[in-house]
Amino acid sequence: MDAELGAQLARLVRKRRTAALGTLRAGAPFVSMVPYALAPDGAGFIVHVSELSAHTKDMLADAHVGLMIAGSEDGDESPLALARVSVQGLAQRIASGAPERAGLKAAYLARFPDAEPMFGFADFALFLIRPESARFVAGFGQAHSLSGASMMRLLQQG
Amino acid sequence: MDAELGAQLARLVRKRRTAALGTLRAGAPFVSMVPYALAPDGAGFIVHVSELSAHTKDMLADAHVGLMIAGSEDGDESPLALARVSVQGLAQRIASGAPERAGLKAAYLARFPDAEPMFGFADFALFLIRPESARFVAGFGQAHSLSGASMMRLLQQG
Repeated sequence: MDAELGAQLARLVRKRRTAALGTLRAGAPFVSMVPYALAPDGAGFIVHVSELSAHTKDMLADAHVGLMIAGSEDGDESPLALARVSVQGLAQRIASGAPERAGLKAAYLARFPDAEPMFGFADFALFLIRPESARFVAGFGQAHSLSGASMMRLLQQG
Repeated sequence: MDAELGAQLARLVRKRRTAALGTLRAGAPFVSMVPYALAPDGAGFIVHVSELSAHTKDMLADAHVGLMIAGSEDGDESPLALARVSVQGLAQRIASGAPERAGLKAAYLARFPDAEPMFGFADFALFLIRPESARFVAGFGQAHSLSGASMMRLLQQG
């Protein structure tokens, strides 16, 4: 993928704030909405979710997830041509005592200061989603496949 | 669900034009973006997708899908509080000769006139996604479960 496309992907992921999260529920896909932040070291996407919610139970039962981030519908573009990236990866719960937790929490709160009180709730959980593969559709008919590692490098540079 | 909530759900689905589609790929969830329209008889959601794309192959291999429609990130609301609805259902390919095809195609093109040329491509397929269940999150902590049939009735009224 050339530098301009890489920069376009990085702009999309840095500008948008919510993703569609796909989890497995009794063998079928379930899609919910999650705010996300990027791990400062490029390890993946950070999400902070209630343990009472079904998507959290899904991720604890099966770590395979999909994540999709799309450009704004509210722009001038045809919805058929919106840029979007689809990621497949594994969701890992970050326990209270984990060494990486402080950095991930700080990155999440830098993006979502409103979420601070939720870190005081016992039933919220922090997850890191490590991408394995990604497909970036830059517009109509412009699809590019890349590895999770390649995508995270582009996002770090962007 | 009371009338005001039902109306809020109908406004969301009628106003937005793209959904996040969750399909099963080798047993893992994959999320992509699809423009959608509503079937005129309330049977479900209409999508029109390329047979070359992976989500189409996924739906032909396993009809279980998830669909999520979320409010605009670009408004004043916190992304943590965005309204969204998650649907689980079954995707059925509508063959060229099917009696319901003309009505579904017309409803799709009424929403997406740009898509007209794609109906001339041999490798595009029309699907009807019939909802089995839905979960409407009207805002932070305001989640409501409903059957697919109840949701479609609310959308017909809205």
